[in-house]
Order: sequence, then structure tokens, then C-alpha cells
Amino acid sequence: MSWQMARRAERLNPSTIREILKLTEKPGIVSLAGGLPAADAFPIAAMAEATARVLHGSGREALQYAASEGYAPLREWIAARLCAQGLDADPARILVTTGSQQGLDLVGKVMIDAGSRVAVESPTYLGALQAFNAYEPDFVAVEGDADGPRPEALAAAAGARFLYLLPNFQNPSGRCLSEARRRALAAAAAEAGLPIVEDNPYGELWYETPPPAPVAAHAGENALYLGSFSKVLAPGLRLGWMLAPRVLFPKLLQAKQAADLHTPGFNQRIVHEVVKDGFLDEHVPTIRARYRRHRDAMRAALEHHLPAGCRWEVPAGGMFFWIELPAGLDATALLPAAVAAGVAYVPGAPFFADTPRANTLRLSFVTVPPEEIERGVALLGGVLKAAA
Amino acid sequence: MSWQMARRAERLNPSTIREILKLTEKPGIVSLAGGLPAADAFPIAAMAEATARVLHGSGREALQYAASEGYAPLREWIAARLCAQGLDADPARILVTTGSQQGLDLVGKVMIDAGSRVAVESPTYLGALQAFNAYEPDFVAVEGDADGPRPEALAAAAGARFLYLLPNFQNPSGRCLSEARRRALAAAAAEAGLPIVEDNPYGELWYETPPPAPVAAHAGENALYLGSFSKVLAPGLRLGWMLAPRVLFPKLLQAKQAADLHTPGFNQRIVHEVVKDGFLDEHVPTIRARYRRHRDAMRAALEHHLPAGCRWEVPAGGMFFWIELPAGLDATALLPAAVAAGVAYVPGAPFFADTPRANTLRLSFVTVPPEEIERGVALLGGVLKAAA
Repeated sequence: MSWQMARRAERLNPSTIREILKLTEKPGIVSLAGGLPAADAFPIAAMAEATARVLHGSGREALQYAASEGYAPLREWIAARLCAQGLDADPARILVTTGSQQGLDLVGKVMIDAGSRVAVESPTYLGALQAFNAYEPDFVAVEGDADGPRPEALAAAAGARFLYLLPNFQNPSGRCLSEARRRALAAAAAEAGLPIVEDNPYGELWYETPPPAPVAAHAGENALYLGSFSKVLAPGLRLGWMLAPRVLFPKLLQAKQAADLHTPGFNQRIVHEVVKDGFLDEHVPTIRARYRRHRDAMRAALEHHLPAGCRWEVPAGGMFFWIELPAGLDATALLPAAVAAGVAYVPGAPFFADTPRANTLRLSFVTVPPEEIERGVALLGGVLKAAA
Repeated sequence: MSWQMARRAERLNPSTIREILKLTEKPGIVSLAGGLPAADAFPIAAMAEATARVLHGSGREALQYAASEGYAPLREWIAARLCAQGLDADPARILVTTGSQQGLDLVGKVMIDAGSRVAVESPTYLGALQAFNAYEPDFVAVEGDADGPRPEALAAAAGARFLYLLPNFQNPSGRCLSEARRRALAAAAAEAGLPIVEDNPYGELWYETPPPAPVAAHAGENALYLGSFSKVLAPGLRLGWMLAPRVLFPKLLQAKQAADLHTPGFNQRIVHEVVKDGFLDEHVPTIRARYRRHRDAMRAALEHHLPAGCRWEVPAGGMFFWIELPAGLDATALLPAAVAAGVAYVPGAPFFADTPRANTLRLSFVTVPPEEIERGVALLGGVLKAAA
């Protein structure tokens, strides 16, 4: 056999998280590792009704090849919703994607040459690092503080193809940027000639007050903005979208067409049928209420069970607590002991494009019910106390 | 604004076919251009029943994140079907993709460096050229005859990353390789150290006798084999798959994960529910019978209306007639006159990675009904007679 792979294949490596999730499939493990939305929040009845209506009313169109841009009424619905959030969102700038993960891949494909610099937060979303990695960039980690990347640090990233930002309840750190920081970052990025790729999978999952307007609302077409139906409806539909600068839209569209022709029209029409009359306005508050209870259960459990020296902020939304262990503890090294004790988490190391902070880990509070969270955190506390 | 695109973006260009399809949206045009399956052949009732069963029985699983490899029962079903066709198809080698177009993209991503040689037929499938183009290869067109690429010509392509082959009722040429040619190509490719990427979207659409076994049946893991549900069920589901060599599978899987995490589990489960009890064995013959009538209508119309000097082979399957006009006629230059007369086709030129043959065009016989085919071909004949 003579298969010779591309150089980039060296950078396509098994996801650490994926490998960890395999460990956690053992029965009896309390998995605080995965980022799976709670499946009993999926609107199955609404989906079933919408699917029946789509197949009955426009089955041929839903099952036929369709436009690479996406289903026009869905693009219009997304644009209207973004306009209500303060964005200048012409439907002609909306590209429907096969999950927002595909949006990240298309951004990488159109923007990154081998050796291009790409600026990222530290830590940042692992799936974005994976998507961009296929295009062989050099990552530049932007210095930050508790309110996210520091605007003064952007000058050092000037010349990068873009700055990748996840301002709302970031995966993995859970932190949400203040409005002042958003404005300052938009201004500093413009100053540094640094375009922004803003990713917002979690913005609807706020538990006290909605997050500030997107950075993109202050950045005009210096920002590309990504969103998803995965966290507000269901991830198994693989439906996301991007609001792209006009200067990039044609190339992103062509990259999309080359990648999978179009996102399933069947799924796009079903989701449009579900959301078009305001369903999310009723449905999302039920998800928020559920996840807030989960978050509060995890907060209480952490306060009760984690040993002194562990630190965390309470996330105001999203799906994750980000824990800093006492210096000297290594979350990757401790994972086998935790799994043996019956609890799984994700070590923080893979989320860093620069030097990993070994004493960090991510806990998801959305997948398992509150009583399991309590049990899992208690087990984790035991492991950490034994190691300290 | 400071957006700087990757070098590869220069090679992402609007699809000629896409631009032509826009022209044909004018009311009253008989479009023989598009390759859209006949929508009244879509099994809408079976899809509706299957969707209801999936959402009722396993809605949470169908709507949740899922494995990047694909839904295990669907992978097993695909593998069993391939084994029945003479392939050594372990389900562990099946990767479910978002249409087989995504399979082509993943192959490009894992196999092609900028400047890599990729061997293709001449003409070949335009969508494959687009998918591969994003990874900046140099295409090598393999010399062929009426039975496809000539085995003796493969030596000249030695060192290419792979040979892309579409042996069954090729888009655009309609030709189907003989069994002898398939065996000879598999042997010559092995001899030349040239791996094969075999694409089979149309193999089930045969109108007299089934095509010979795939080239991959003679090539072992020197071949990667792509397939799709688009032509036997419906393209709007975006569901395809590949049978990958073991040595490539892990990297293809990681590329898939980075590209869209996974193909919608909802769609995979619905399709599995539709096909698992033999539905295709009843359904596909109805598509064959329908398309055979269309093909025969186009054959009769071509014989009646096209001027002397035009040449074509009658395709034994698939969706397309490939017409050679008299030397000196340019199908691209004639298109505006044809559209003005009320008929559209796709010029052959974009299907060539090497020097295009300007006097070629592609006609699809599956989208419009037989009486429209007759009318469209009559209009085309008038345009060609006027130009000759």
C-alpha cells in the first residue's frame, strides 16, 4: 500500500476529551466530563410535530438538494434575531452550517495558511483548536485576566489572521466578558488591524441576567459571528450558522459548497418550523431554570467537598465550572485515580494553545442530575484530599 | 477591515454549474442542466413513518451529540451491503459522512498537500475537483478511451497521492467501466504504487444489468470507497459514507470530528429505520424504472432532433447523456442562445482538469418529465442547427 498522507495529518490527533469520554462509559462512573446537554430538555414533541408538517407540506423540497447558503426563511429568522441583539445582520450575510463546528472549519479553510498566526484566548475552546489545526497555523495565546483577554495585549497579536473569542460563558473557563471589556476589545482589535471571529454557543444559557451585546455589535464587519441551535434545541440536528463579513462571504460559501454542498434541508426546515412562531421564547427559559438548579447544586457541592486551596468562579451561564487546584497538583495525572474512584472530569491542559496550566480541570454541570452532581463532586473531593 | 484570506481561497471559485442553475430558474426554461433526482421519487411516507418511530423510540439519543464515526447500526448495515457486493467491509472501516461530498473533502484534507499530484479522469466529477482544489493539488489527467482510464497510462501518474475514479455511470460522461478494465486498473494502480479513491454515487441506478463489482473489490486496502444515500433515498438528508483503509481511518475520523463533530444522528437513525428491513430492494427498482423511461425519452429525442455530427453513447445507468458537438462548436459560447431559446444544459468544459473539450455538454434526464425532455431537446436541436 502506498497511501501518503498530507503534512497536516500529523496535527490531526485523537481528541483528549474523546479518549476521556470513552473511559467514562464504564457503568457507575459519574461523568462530569462531557459537555452533553441534558437530553430530557430536548423538545421531542415539538420536533415530531414540525417534522410531520414539513414532510406533509414540503416533503419534496425538504428532501431535495438545496442552496449552499441555507434555507432562506431560516436565514431571515436568524438575521432578525441577531438584529434584535444589536447586530447589523443582513440575511445575505448568514451562512447556515452543519453545526457551528463546521463554521470554525470553514473559517480555518478560508483564512489560514500554513504558518499563519491565529490569536486565541488561554484557555480556549478545544474544538476550535482542532478545527484550525488542520490548516497548520501558529497559535498566539493572548494574555488575559478574570475579565478575559486584555485589550492592551492585542497589539502583540497584530498581523494574526484573526482573534478567536468566546465571550459568553466560555468553554472551558465559564467566564463572561463585561460590556466594557467587549467594547475595549473591539476597539483594540480595530486599532491593531486584527479581525475577530466570535463564537457564541452558550449565550442563551444565562442564569441571572443576559450577557452584554456581542463584541461583534461593536466591531461591524471586522467581526465574523458564529452561532448554533445545539444548546437551545438539540445538538443531534447539527445546525449552526455564521454572520460573515461581506468581503468573506463568497469564499466561505464556496468552501461550504466544496465541504458538504449544503446543510441538510430537512433539518433546516424542521428547525425553522419549530422556532418560527416564538417557541424558543417559551422553551429556553425552561432550559435556563433546569441548568441553574444544576449549577447551584454543583456550587454547593464544590463548597462542601473540595479541599482548601481549590479555586473557582461561579459561572453566570453556560455549562462549566473551571477549577484551579492547588499548585503542584496535576489534573491529568490525577484522572486515573478519579475514574477509579467513580468520577470523571476533563483536565484543563488540552484547552491551552500555549503552556498548559496543569492544575486546572473542567466540570460540566448539565448532563447529570443534581443528586449525581453532589455524589460526583464528593468523590472528586476525596481524590483531591488524598493527593494534596 | 483587515481580513486576509488564505492562499487557497484563490482556488475557491463560484461553481460554473451553480451559476448556470441560477439562469435556469427563469420560468419556462426546460432545464436539462441540474443533476437533481426526481423529487416525486422520494419516499416521503416511509420517511415520515421512520421519523415518527425514531423520535418516539429514541428521540433523546437521536437529538444528542453522537459518535464521529457514525451510528453503529447504520455502519453495520452499510458494511453488510458492501460485503454482499464483494468488498471486504469491516464496519470499523465505515465512516459516515455529511453526504459523499464531505467524504471527498476529508480525503483532500488528509491526503493532499499544496503541490501534491492528484490523478483524475478526463472529464471527471466537478464536485470532486472543487473539494480537492481547496487543498491546492496539481491535477494529472489520466488518458482514457471509451472504457475509461487506460491502465497503461497510470504509470505516468505514479507518485500522485491517489487516483480518483468514478467507474459507474460517471458524472458527466455516463460511461461505466467493464469488469476487465476494473481489474486491469486495480492491478496497474498497485503496480504504480498509486492508491485509488473510488466514488460510487450512481451504481444502484442501472437500467439493464447491474454494473460489475467495484474496482475496490480488486484493490483491497489500496482503495478507499465512497457511497451515498442521495440517489437511492433523497439528497436533502446529506448522508454518505466511506469505506476507508485501516491505515487512514484514524486520521479521517479526526478530520471528520474537526469538520462537523458528526453527521446528524437524527438523519442517520431515520435512514437506518427506513432501510433496515429491505426497503431499498422494493424502492430502488421503482427509481430505475422511472429513470429508464426518462433515459429512453432522451435517447429518442436526441436521435430525432440533434443535427448530424453530434455524438453520444447511451448511458446504461445514472443520470446523464454526454454530447459531443461537431468540432468547432463551443458549448459554453452557445449557452446564452440556448437559454434564450428556452433550454439549459451544462457545458462540458468545467469537468476537465486539463485542457477542456469545448465541444462537449452534459444533459440530465432525471429531473424533468419525458414530455419536457422531448421539448427541451427539440429546442436544443434548433439552437445547434442554427449554429452549425
